[in-house]
Amino acid sequence: MQDMKEYYLQKAEENTPPLFYETVKSTKAVEIVEDKNAFFGCSAFDCGEIPAVVKTGDKFVVDFGRHCVGRVSLHVWDNGRYIDAPVRLKLRFGEVPYELYRDNASYHGSLCASWLMEDIINIDRIGKVELPRRYSFRYLEVTVLATPRPTRLYDFEVVCETSADVSKLVPLPAGTDPELVAIDRVAAATLRDCMQSAYEDGPKRDRRLWSGDLRLQALTDHVLFGNDMLARRCLYLFAACRRDGKYLPGCLYQYPEFSFDNGMEIPDYSMLYCTSIADYYEKTGDTETLTDLFPVVKNEIGIAIDTLDENGIATLPEGGWPGFIDWAPGLERVTAVHGAYLYSLENVIPLAEAMGETALAEKWKQVLAAGRAAAMKHLFDAESGAFINTYEKQQQEVADAVVPQSAVREAGSRGQLSVQSQVWMVLGGVLAGEAGVQALKMALADPKSVKPVTPYMHHYLVEAWVKLGRMDEALAHIKAYWGAMVRYGADTFWEVFVDGKSEVSAYNDPLMHSFCHAWSCSPSYFIRKYFVK
Amino acid sequence: MQDMKEYYLQKAEENTPPLFYETVKSTKAVEIVEDKNAFFGCSAFDCGEIPAVVKTGDKFVVDFGRHCVGRVSLHVWDNGRYIDAPVRLKLRFGEVPYELYRDNASYHGSLCASWLMEDIINIDRIGKVELPRRYSFRYLEVTVLATPRPTRLYDFEVVCETSADVSKLVPLPAGTDPELVAIDRVAAATLRDCMQSAYEDGPKRDRRLWSGDLRLQALTDHVLFGNDMLARRCLYLFAACRRDGKYLPGCLYQYPEFSFDNGMEIPDYSMLYCTSIADYYEKTGDTETLTDLFPVVKNEIGIAIDTLDENGIATLPEGGWPGFIDWAPGLERVTAVHGAYLYSLENVIPLAEAMGETALAEKWKQVLAAGRAAAMKHLFDAESGAFINTYEKQQQEVADAVVPQSAVREAGSRGQLSVQSQVWMVLGGVLAGEAGVQALKMALADPKSVKPVTPYMHHYLVEAWVKLGRMDEALAHIKAYWGAMVRYGADTFWEVFVDGKSEVSAYNDPLMHSFCHAWSCSPSYFIRKYFVK
Repeated sequence: MQDMKEYYLQKAEENTPPLFYETVKSTKAVEIVEDKNAFFGCSAFDCGEIPAVVKTGDKFVVDFGRHCVGRVSLHVWDNGRYIDAPVRLKLRFGEVPYELYRDNASYHGSLCASWLMEDIINIDRIGKVELPRRYSFRYLEVTVLATPRPTRLYDFEVVCETSADVSKLVPLPAGTDPELVAIDRVAAATLRDCMQSAYEDGPKRDRRLWSGDLRLQALTDHVLFGNDMLARRCLYLFAACRRDGKYLPGCLYQYPEFSFDNGMEIPDYSMLYCTSIADYYEKTGDTETLTDLFPVVKNEIGIAIDTLDENGIATLPEGGWPGFIDWAPGLERVTAVHGAYLYSLENVIPLAEAMGETALAEKWKQVLAAGRAAAMKHLFDAESGAFINTYEKQQQEVADAVVPQSAVREAGSRGQLSVQSQVWMVLGGVLAGEAGVQALKMALADPKSVKPVTPYMHHYLVEAWVKLGRMDEALAHIKAYWGAMVRYGADTFWEVFVDGKSEVSAYNDPLMHSFCHAWSCSPSYFIRKYFVK
Repeated sequence: MQDMKEYYLQKAEENTPPLFYETVKSTKAVEIVEDKNAFFGCSAFDCGEIPAVVKTGDKFVVDFGRHCVGRVSLHVWDNGRYIDAPVRLKLRFGEVPYELYRDNASYHGSLCASWLMEDIINIDRIGKVELPRRYSFRYLEVTVLATPRPTRLYDFEVVCETSADVSKLVPLPAGTDPELVAIDRVAAATLRDCMQSAYEDGPKRDRRLWSGDLRLQALTDHVLFGNDMLARRCLYLFAACRRDGKYLPGCLYQYPEFSFDNGMEIPDYSMLYCTSIADYYEKTGDTETLTDLFPVVKNEIGIAIDTLDENGIATLPEGGWPGFIDWAPGLERVTAVHGAYLYSLENVIPLAEAMGETALAEKWKQVLAAGRAAAMKHLFDAESGAFINTYEKQQQEVADAVVPQSAVREAGSRGQLSVQSQVWMVLGGVLAGEAGVQALKMALADPKSVKPVTPYMHHYLVEAWVKLGRMDEALAHIKAYWGAMVRYGADTFWEVFVDGKSEVSAYNDPLMHSFCHAWSCSPSYFIRKYFVK
């Protein structure tokens, strides 16, 4: 197995994409002030040019006019050819104005405060100052902590980095609905800035490669930038994590060396990794890569089948994550994870056939049919016509122990009605046609149901509408959900978004959110595949 | 003249010395606590090894066991192969424990706070972290501002830089007074750490090249490391600053390019630059360099002669510095500057002779004799047998306007008695023999007199004793003054030191002091030239 790991890493290395660089300069200053109409209660207003000369205590915010991921430089000049004493600056970076409107000291979230992009630098010599880190931002707040005399800070510049070749981006046809054009533009910027040497989750903070996010990025990349090489690299990187009897880790690290964490198994993410291979093969017909990766598909699907419970329902791994599905607090996940299993099983059957493993394909077809039947028998609530997570309280307790969140199951209710469960039962082929539409509509309409909070889960909601043939609903949802972020001024799509509820956070404080988050990029996939000619 | 400037810079470039590197590692922690017996009221006490694991909020101080000037690195490890979130550290550096005992926020001095060595860094990846700046320190305080989980910080290392070849340092003979051995060791460490691509003033803060300091460093370097190349480079750098009718600037900058400030003329420093050329020629017999630099000597000495007042007494330049001499508050400088002029004039006469300019040499001899006579006539106070700065109130007012300091002239007194004036009248050859001894002793003994505060001025006090043939007094003063710093635990000699008065500062706060200051290194020169066999 070690040999295969080295082989997979070698293939990943060979598929490292080149980076493209673009320089963005700015002399524009903004002031970030309270704005009750803005989603986060604040907005950036133009206030002309950045100050020509600054002194100790001065503060200003440079607006680069677009979301940037890259290296920052500036020039320092001291009215002479030398600097009398170092210039000490505090730098804070914001993808959105809110990050600079808030005082970092007020952060009270669950992730480490060091993710909040803040540096203090000392400049010893005049001339160009190149900051060593990569930042993800549009706004740069500069506070002059100490300067020996009034000083010029100028030539603020970002050399943006991406593995997306933006020259390959085909404009939408003339006459396309401007709302879709706007959504597509923001989605493309989101993906562009998450495309580095791997599909990063979010360049601000979570710079690792997650398999669930990989799937949406690769789908969207194919219709935007066509960087199949990057998709291939990421598939090989995960293949190098393969272990007997244990799902893939949900994420991995490239730096300082390839690594991943034991205990990061996420069953639905493993299933979607298998679907990503199916997506890739469907688009490319690349049999060589499929041949390399199919053993991993067999391993992951095999684990899912082997760990079905006595009723044929998916189980959540003990110790690892209880499935991801979405960040909605208190979400009960067994039904949705089972749906993701069925969905992927259906997707990988053609791979077995392409590999000539007809017996395996036949077996998987039988297992798929059995899994769907088991879902109808054990998970479906005939009385309500929906999946309300009444099954297997014990499994849910395992889940709560790992990701403790306030339970949202209503006291006295028979179960938890969630949009997530209906979506995944539709995608898993358990509920189809009008029954699927009704279950989905009921869950969406019920004010007490659990609803998606992440663009990631909203993707699968749109995908469910598409699968049900309800293209109007799919399009309307894209415009309502991603369109709202555009109307709130998003340059890139956010990690978490619930309209009207800016306080919703996966980390107990939206200050920590990534506002350029890869799993939010998929509207371009739907728009370009289904909604333009 | 521009051609000569380029030529001088070219020669300076050719004489850039190689740097030598030495790696210093430490795992030792100290605690810095109040200590009423210590000069600054605090001391560093061993507290074993640095912590094996740190968490957010932890703080510790690494003791490198010696004064270091160089690049710092450390390793970060996160109990895994990746870092979950950046590790944010605050780093403060101290040459002496006092700098870390004080809170930087309490700094109230006159120089820019950015000189206080403090950085906040964010570490994105595990492994070796190399800090980009050069620091000057023995103690490194590390505060863990944020870490996602308990983390190891280890392999703290400094790659020390110096242009001193310490292998050339000849040990003092066996049997040398241990007190002198200790003073010589600290002096050598001081010079070593100030020797970079030029003689730096102080590597902590004032990294420029000052001509007055250059003189003491070059003298001492010759007996310790013999790096005449560095002395030559520095002499050429100043030569490139030569201007018609205007003294050399007191200091210059090498980075980012050669530059200096108009308005930084310091008459005594210009004179001592000329003496440095005499020192250099005396040691090396390097006629080529003398030939290059003698035009600068003529220029500087010429300006001094041209600007003598109607009584033949040196004047302080308007607008520039009023002479340096020493940082003693309220010091009246005309007499001392006149002494420095006479001293240098005497020193450069042999240069004119070596250059075959016998007419000039004769002229300078006459001017020297006239200058000494003028000093006796206009500056000497026969009643007290000393120089008490009664001359030319107007000139002093010019000085006070530029360096305003509380006047220390006693109300009702006839003048200001200072050690500085007596020293420079002795060195200028105005007062010799028993008269010189008496004037010096009187100024030293008088509780109301102005006394030296810098090791730089103390050097010239020792030199005056030597000139007067009072070797016992010279040696006793070295032991009393520099010896006291050694007894207070100095690893390197300090910029300012007045025993028992830790509050004395040139910048209104000793926190800003450089504690490894080049002008303090000269005891080794005296010890090795006069006090060992």
